[in-house]
Amino acid sequence: MAHIPDSLLAGYRNFMNGRYASESGRYRALAREGQTPETMVIACCDSRAAPEAIFDAGPGELFVVRNVANLVPPYEPDGEFHSTSAALEFAVQSLKVKNIVVMGHGRCGGIGAALNVNAAPLSPGDFIGKWMSLIAPAAETVSGSTLMTQSERQTALERISIRYSIANLRTFPCVSILEGKGRLTLSGAWFDISSGELWVMNRATGDFERPEEKA
Amino acid sequence: MAHIPDSLLAGYRNFMNGRYASESGRYRALAREGQTPETMVIACCDSRAAPEAIFDAGPGELFVVRNVANLVPPYEPDGEFHSTSAALEFAVQSLKVKNIVVMGHGRCGGIGAALNVNAAPLSPGDFIGKWMSLIAPAAETVSGSTLMTQSERQTALERISIRYSIANLRTFPCVSILEGKGRLTLSGAWFDISSGELWVMNRATGDFERPEEKA
Amino acid sequence: MAHIPDSLLAGYRNFMNGRYASESGRYRALAREGQTPETMVIACCDSRAAPEAIFDAGPGELFVVRNVANLVPPYEPDGEFHSTSAALEFAVQSLKVKNIVVMGHGRCGGIGAALNVNAAPLSPGDFIGKWMSLIAPAAETVSGSTLMTQSERQTALERISIRYSIANLRTFPCVSILEGKGRLTLSGAWFDISSGELWVMNRATGDFERPEEKA
Amino acid sequence: MAHIPDSLLAGYRNFMNGRYASESGRYRALAREGQTPETMVIACCDSRAAPEAIFDAGPGELFVVRNVANLVPPYEPDGEFHSTSAALEFAVQSLKVKNIVVMGHGRCGGIGAALNVNAAPLSPGDFIGKWMSLIAPAAETVSGSTLMTQSERQTALERISIRYSIANLRTFPCVSILEGKGRLTLSGAWFDISSGELWVMNRATGDFERPEEKA
Repeated sequence: MAHIPDSLLAGYRNFMNGRYASESGRYRALAREGQTPETMVIACCDSRAAPEAIFDAGPGELFVVRNVANLVPPYEPDGEFHSTSAALEFAVQSLKVKNIVVMGHGRCGGIGAALNVNAAPLSPGDFIGKWMSLIAPAAETVSGSTLMTQSERQTALERISIRYSIANLRTFPCVSILEGKGRLTLSGAWFDISSGELWVMNRATGDFERPEEKA
Repeated sequence: MAHIPDSLLAGYRNFMNGRYASESGRYRALAREGQTPETMVIACCDSRAAPEAIFDAGPGELFVVRNVANLVPPYEPDGEFHSTSAALEFAVQSLKVKNIVVMGHGRCGGIGAALNVNAAPLSPGDFIGKWMSLIAPAAETVSGSTLMTQSERQTALERISIRYSIANLRTFPCVSILEGKGRLTLSGAWFDISSGELWVMNRATGDFERPEEKA
Repeated sequence: MAHIPDSLLAGYRNFMNGRYASESGRYRALAREGQTPETMVIACCDSRAAPEAIFDAGPGELFVVRNVANLVPPYEPDGEFHSTSAALEFAVQSLKVKNIVVMGHGRCGGIGAALNVNAAPLSPGDFIGKWMSLIAPAAETVSGSTLMTQSERQTALERISIRYSIANLRTFPCVSILEGKGRLTLSGAWFDISSGELWVMNRATGDFERPEEKA
Repeated sequence: MAHIPDSLLAGYRNFMNGRYASESGRYRALAREGQTPETMVIACCDSRAAPEAIFDAGPGELFVVRNVANLVPPYEPDGEFHSTSAALEFAVQSLKVKNIVVMGHGRCGGIGAALNVNAAPLSPGDFIGKWMSLIAPAAETVSGSTLMTQSERQTALERISIRYSIANLRTFPCVSILEGKGRLTLSGAWFDISSGELWVMNRATGDFERPEEKA
């Protein structure tokens, strides 16, 4: 009896015979010398939007937080447990990453839940309800935008949420100071699962644009 | 001027010409029909331990939470923001995953910070300090195990922490009920960055063993 | 009636027709010229961890002490009988070996007995209890490490004990002087019976590492 | 830099590619199920007289104590450290071996030291001197037997010493009781390094005889 799902064990064996076999030197060096990723990505848990796949990233390249709907809460030094803030502090202060990318995506279940303002909690603890309440004011506004289709409201909130998370990143003193000194960049991106397109947030306007159109 | 780091843009172009080009049908179907991952992985943010790489997983296969040191807090329905609990609730109640895997790894910076009990906070907010305090009692005990080397203490706490997170998973009623009904499995795994080995937790004993040895 | 167990007699006949037949010249030279082994191994009595097998060593290569749990007591020139100290003195002063290796192994019964701190003596003489009391302080500490599994405690004490024996070797003036002059090396090793792996102690850190990973 | 002598590392690699590769199933079973050797061998540390070689024994077959000159001290339940007595207790009471073999050999350095009654200590601790004093009365008598050649005195004391150790084995209550019940056999053997011959002690007479002569 395996103590891990067979499908994962089979995948792990592919890894050992494939990627690890061809990159063992890199893994060993990364173990010996420690990680020095230049970029932190804050992404969603969604199984269709893995940052390493979308950015074709190898071991050691991306420091990745994944939570539902790729949210960053505002700076709250209140002594409570803050998973995302802890990762942010570690990436910026200890690893000294140079870039932070907030990457959302289409058809996000968390954003869908936030828009479904009258839905019953998923469980008595209502953890998703509470978590998505981070963007509740925006969700309520967008859900009332009845001139937009449901799909348009979904995409709109996905993008609003990315801009909101980037704004929250700047409430962390360490982030705003380093960005001010030109030592840290903040980016937004939105991934279209269906077309595979990555839409990048224009830092000046907040708009999401396809970079390949500029190429 | 690109609004996203050049290295990520280059990687994204590789994705479009590579993985997406060969799997566009799968991405389109996943967009159209929604995600139905069978497995949730709770992993670390570390750039060297991406679950999709280690399990050679394609789009749609793994629902992934990543936080520093792959911790699961105990069930606390207190109305606060709980990133990991929200993802857990979503995976179990909405996506109805069949498996949850807590995957730790060697040389984990979060575990190292927890063992460094007298270290100064990384920033005034001390988010890492607070986050890692989830395993503070174990960290204090292990950091006092001076007969072990620093590396041995690190590995010991990494594994203790995985067992602790699995125990915390069971404090969530939805998890313990479904596990009791045989509809949800809980697994632990520990990835050795240097050797590429995956050590799987034996559910009966809590020991970490290499599955290839049983083959 | 044979005066020695039949299985040993059969094995001896294999030796005469096999190894001795092909290495008789070497045995004769070793008899004529005396032994000049370069290495002393201090190993356990365990039937699964014979040093000559693990190091593929032929006649004349290894001077081998074997006691329960491969312990080296500290230097005590008290006029009592000291089996291991006598062998050490003979190897270093008379044979002038260049290397001493303390080799422990997994699933060691002596270490297991030491961890079982409240067990009854095996016999009224309690020789094992007294012998293993050489590492009693460490055994008590490790046996109280309840966050670790039984197997983890066992491995931890096996490795701590090797480091302790190496430290005790250095309490012998002849060892510390020759090591200081670069004429004697001290090594630690731990054999995993199941996987056949030899983990070698890093002299700088005390950690046990698989040498093949560095190849 | 290797942390173990290169020659041992090379030998270990031979073991992994040779004996372990062909007997991995046996090693794994021995790890899983524990050792159950039927025979304990008390042998000398001498590099030319490894019991596993002489008895062509595989993993799991022989529980082996090795000290200088393969001595067994008499039963002394005095609360001191007794390496050999501890191994004996473990073999008989815990592993329940069926046979104990005391195996000496020709050209034994420890026996030679015992015969050299006026030699200076090897080191200030004089551990060999003290250890070999276990057979001091016999050594003094034999060293005075000037009608015998030096070589004859050496062989004589080697064989006297084996008989003495077997007599000492019987001073352990657990040994004498089990031997009386027919559940434990005691044997003596003497290995001629040059010729490869094993001389077996006749239990009735104490003489050492070559078993092949009876075949």
